[in-house]
Amino acid sequence: MAKGRITIAAIAKELSVSVPTVSRVLNGKEDVAESTRVRVEEALTRHNYRKPVAVNSTARSAELLDLVFHEAGSGWAHEIIQGVEYAAGPERIGVVLSQLGGSHRPSKEWLDSIMARRSIGVVLVLSGLDESQRHQLDARSIPYVVIDAHGDPGLGVPTVGSNNWNGGLVATRHLISLGHKRIAVISGPSDVMCSRARVDGYRSAHDEAGIDCDPALVRWGDFEMTAGHKYALELLQGLDRPTAIFAGSDYQALGVMRAARELGLIIPRDLSIVGYDDLPVTEWLTPPLTTVNQPLVKMATMATQMLISIARGKPLASSRVELGTELIVRESTAPPQS
Amino acid sequence: MAKGRITIAAIAKELSVSVPTVSRVLNGKEDVAESTRVRVEEALTRHNYRKPVAVNSTARSAELLDLVFHEAGSGWAHEIIQGVEYAAGPERIGVVLSQLGGSHRPSKEWLDSIMARRSIGVVLVLSGLDESQRHQLDARSIPYVVIDAHGDPGLGVPTVGSNNWNGGLVATRHLISLGHKRIAVISGPSDVMCSRARVDGYRSAHDEAGIDCDPALVRWGDFEMTAGHKYALELLQGLDRPTAIFAGSDYQALGVMRAARELGLIIPRDLSIVGYDDLPVTEWLTPPLTTVNQPLVKMATMATQMLISIARGKPLASSRVELGTELIVRESTAPPQS
Repeated sequence: MAKGRITIAAIAKELSVSVPTVSRVLNGKEDVAESTRVRVEEALTRHNYRKPVAVNSTARSAELLDLVFHEAGSGWAHEIIQGVEYAAGPERIGVVLSQLGGSHRPSKEWLDSIMARRSIGVVLVLSGLDESQRHQLDARSIPYVVIDAHGDPGLGVPTVGSNNWNGGLVATRHLISLGHKRIAVISGPSDVMCSRARVDGYRSAHDEAGIDCDPALVRWGDFEMTAGHKYALELLQGLDRPTAIFAGSDYQALGVMRAARELGLIIPRDLSIVGYDDLPVTEWLTPPLTTVNQPLVKMATMATQMLISIARGKPLASSRVELGTELIVRESTAPPQS
Repeated sequence: MAKGRITIAAIAKELSVSVPTVSRVLNGKEDVAESTRVRVEEALTRHNYRKPVAVNSTARSAELLDLVFHEAGSGWAHEIIQGVEYAAGPERIGVVLSQLGGSHRPSKEWLDSIMARRSIGVVLVLSGLDESQRHQLDARSIPYVVIDAHGDPGLGVPTVGSNNWNGGLVATRHLISLGHKRIAVISGPSDVMCSRARVDGYRSAHDEAGIDCDPALVRWGDFEMTAGHKYALELLQGLDRPTAIFAGSDYQALGVMRAARELGLIIPRDLSIVGYDDLPVTEWLTPPLTTVNQPLVKMATMATQMLISIARGKPLASSRVELGTELIVRESTAPPQS
């Protein structure tokens, strides 16, 4: 990131406010009038201000990093936390949890508290940042790394993802190799890049096998169980029903399983199901779920290592890292009934 | 808690060390020889030293509390975190996550980092504290609240639990009312009080109905899926197999479900299963699980509210709170085959 060329004093002078006022805004203090705060923020952004990083300004043993969950990541909480701890624990960095509401976006209050506790940086789970929020973090020299980009993470934003396109490809190839020709996909929201990539992988597997993709078999939901249930009921009660469903998450797959049971369909005899994530619970389901392993623990560990490197002033080999995905075949998939 | 009557200066004099040395030990600094640290800790404990609490010593917006998970609580992580956030969020208190290893006990390093970041206090999940650790926290005036006492929490330790005995009672009553006479229980470890309480509730339900309890049908495991699987296989392959199993956790119940499937038993026709916890996933299982609702979110909220009250110097109405448990009947229980 480019170093700022302007000082706090220059910004204070330009706005006719005191230097401590600019400093208080930068440091997330509360005793600044809202109108002043807005003007200062605007100027910091406009000048692309960067706070000089004080090396060793905080005692090492009191270091903290912030981990921000978007609510959709809740089912992964344990995997992500484990992965973050693997990297933060040995460095004796405390992990502060922030669970944001449905907004996907950190709030002003949250930014203030990050500053107040001098967090070394932020790991965001499925939470994107808009340009103004990036500027607010950049201006305060708070580094951040995003796990599994939710939409376009923005140029130069360090991100750890996994190969979603490949996940969609291998899941669909597996179903095609079993003999399925009517394969439905229930993905995440269509404005989330990982959802789109998986559906594209699903389409490529069809192309590769010379099988037509029926657009009526593609649904966009969220990643929750209710979405799997709702869309599976629609798909399975339609004419020419699919013989297999590729779900956007393991939780969604649970909803699909319930829909199948409600309709009296036996898995995998009457319907094959592939999930996504490979949460520990999936191998204990009835039947154990065939699913795509998304390496959540490793992704969280790597994102945290990247954050620590940035905070320590070490260069990153690459700011965009993608880990591999692989299919785990269990008992929820079988050849279709002929 | 009693106020300390001895000063740091007096302890320093007694040990012939400097006042800053005692202070460094109290504040978790690292530049103290290990032998000196041990002597100072010993003296602090012996004199029942309490650090004076500086009111408003930390800016409110930078306040933190520590949430400590024992690994066995991992399946509950999301519920507990949600509950803690409900209480900490509105107070703008950051939640620092500490996942301890299998020891159940906080380490010295961890105590040091709590001091270094001036945490307002600690919420412990299923993690007990021994007397020396209680002294270490007391000496530093770090309050703590335990969620679901793991063993005896110690006199005067603020604890939020739920009525485990009642949970065991209502689960077993339900099975008896369906006509079951051979009911097995797979509980948690026998040295964990909540496991014992549930088994006692199970026994009381038998006594109440005038049915003998077969000691061969009681197993003590841990709360994981593997324990449920292992003990269910033993129980179901024995002579005069049980027609119902009451599991120590929903995760254990998943293991029991797998064992049943492996043996070709249909749930609930051939085997009724009751879980414990009522995790969100349970209503999506095949079949949806009958289980005891342990109000984890509420327990975590209440524990956090208690901690904040203590940290703010407000009196607690009661230091031991127990929330109610109730049976949620779904589709994994039915009358036994006659």
